Amino acid sequence: MRVNAQALNQFSKDLFVAKGVSDEHAQTMANALTWADLRGVDTHGISRVPMYFRLLDSKEMNAKPKLRVLQETLALTVLEADRSAGPIAMQEASDIAMKKAKHTGVGLVMVRNTTHTASLGIYSEKIAKSGMACIALAASRPNMGYYGSKAAGVSTAPFSMAVPGPKGQAIILDMASGIVSLGKLAQLKAKNEALQPGWALDAEGQETIDPQKALIPLPLGGPKGSGLSLMFEMMASLPVLNPLIGHFFSDKEDAQRHCQNAWVMAIDIQQVCPEASFAEEMLNTIKALKALPVDEKVGTEILMPGERGYKEREKREQQGVPIPPKMQATLIDLATQYKVASPF
Amino acid sequence: MRVNAQALNQFSKDLFVAKGVSDEHAQTMANALTWADLRGVDTHGISRVPMYFRLLDSKEMNAKPKLRVLQETLALTVLEADRSAGPIAMQEASDIAMKKAKHTGVGLVMVRNTTHTASLGIYSEKIAKSGMACIALAASRPNMGYYGSKAAGVSTAPFSMAVPGPKGQAIILDMASGIVSLGKLAQLKAKNEALQPGWALDAEGQETIDPQKALIPLPLGGPKGSGLSLMFEMMASLPVLNPLIGHFFSDKEDAQRHCQNAWVMAIDIQQVCPEASFAEEMLNTIKALKALPVDEKVGTEILMPGERGYKEREKREQQGVPIPPKMQATLIDLATQYKVASPF
Repeated sequence: MRVNAQALNQFSKDLFVAKGVSDEHAQTMANALTWADLRGVDTHGISRVPMYFRLLDSKEMNAKPKLRVLQETLALTVLEADRSAGPIAMQEASDIAMKKAKHTGVGLVMVRNTTHTASLGIYSEKIAKSGMACIALAASRPNMGYYGSKAAGVSTAPFSMAVPGPKGQAIILDMASGIVSLGKLAQLKAKNEALQPGWALDAEGQETIDPQKALIPLPLGGPKGSGLSLMFEMMASLPVLNPLIGHFFSDKEDAQRHCQNAWVMAIDIQQVCPEASFAEEMLNTIKALKALPVDEKVGTEILMPGERGYKEREKREQQGVPIPPKMQATLIDLATQYKVASPF
Repeated sequence: MRVNAQALNQFSKDLFVAKGVSDEHAQTMANALTWADLRGVDTHGISRVPMYFRLLDSKEMNAKPKLRVLQETLALTVLEADRSAGPIAMQEASDIAMKKAKHTGVGLVMVRNTTHTASLGIYSEKIAKSGMACIALAASRPNMGYYGSKAAGVSTAPFSMAVPGPKGQAIILDMASGIVSLGKLAQLKAKNEALQPGWALDAEGQETIDPQKALIPLPLGGPKGSGLSLMFEMMASLPVLNPLIGHFFSDKEDAQRHCQNAWVMAIDIQQVCPEASFAEEMLNTIKALKALPVDEKVGTEILMPGERGYKEREKREQQGVPIPPKMQATLIDLATQYKVASPF
């Protein structure tokens, strides 16, 4: 079943408001989910509402956060997110980063103590569309194997880079440091489809292709992926003194709590390069790559980072967002429970 | 045969001086090679001298470069490298980045028109040892497959992140965006050892495990690795209007020329976090990861990014740097040709 994106947006906003979130914050959260739903990132769309509700119930996510700037230099800000829903803190961080970049050329906001950031591409796209370049990353608690170990030690931490692209769109790389996502493992489990070798460990730390036993995703390229994830923790969590790995393995009562830290960086490239010249070289680069011989085993054309998402967005804006029956039932249950009108 | 690192350093410096490089620049270049030789990165050590000589002969590398600042904002500098040997521009960029970061919190130097940067870890380690965090990356001409294509479209571009670590050392991630390096392909060819599936394409763009046919390394994680490499080009080459991919595929006479652009970014984390508190959380994090169950198929202990290099450095400082016979012969030939004393 396909549902109109605007209807899904209103529905998730209404659900968050019913849960005690302010109108403005609920809209920001709903917009983040809709961004992913439209671009085909189904793991980060409205399917996240039940998780956000669980986090609000357990108080790991704060329904009424008060964001505040903890530290500030000319190009660097530490933003205390007060356990806000990720999109609230990340949007605020993006605005601060762009403002600082306008002034100094580069603005970096370290977001402290937020929750699930949603797709980093939301923020990197926004910054790129303003004419700047963006680097964003997030650190989370361990759920991925650390190279050389048989257990989860780091997270499938995401990383995004974006720059202004043609047609008012952005070029958006939005990737995780794992070779496979937890969402994909869950999908294979549901379908009982075998994994590829090297994708995951079982509970005992043995590599497995059995979808019923696969539990811990492995890092992209061994030490590269787990190294990236660890560096994100060391850069985003330690300087704001909100360690996630150290805390997770401590004997503290809330060691298992959900928490994230993140970076949003804006680089005002227009201060060193005329917009039109950048756009011209961008077109040349894209044209050169699109003229390469296509590998027909992969697809029918060569795509830029983020391009598939734009194509999917165009399609879903017209045809609606597909919602699997099981997810639909879960959301209808929430609608009934919270007395919110459902689009289903 | 193992050779004393200091002797190799003097030898490569003497060779560069004999080739017309100033004493100071030759020392900087030699130090970059020795850094890699000591840490076991043999592909980026003294073995690069013949390549540097070829680039000097063809004037793709400038023996007497005049570096100059093209643009400057409070946190951002564009440094024109004048086709200098990479380490000369990258060291200068590191110094500028740290100076700007001291002032604003973040300093980003876009290095324009340099040559082979050598190991990025040299610069990220230096910045981390000064108490700051570092991100460095480089863009180069196409030599790696672009996801979805059967040809080389992007480069095996490197990326490095570093932060201050314990014992006066740094935590250094230093990785390429390829699944396998060109050096490794050359090694397998020499030994006639089969590749692993998914590592490389042959001249016709077909995947191959035949070491005699493997030509084009494939990106790390498909679209992730080629996306990373392309973003480096779009961030490091386009804003300084020195495109490498667009130029390579153009019909310009020097389309195939060797050229690189790079970023060196310093973040003065001490402005937001006391050094001692960062160090304490760093130790907790390392301790937690080192306590994970070891995967005995990988090794006997869990290592932090860059730790293997420090261990190798300790060993090679005592036992010398291994130089394979063939490389030794090549270097002796150069010594004879340029009338320089050889340590062999």
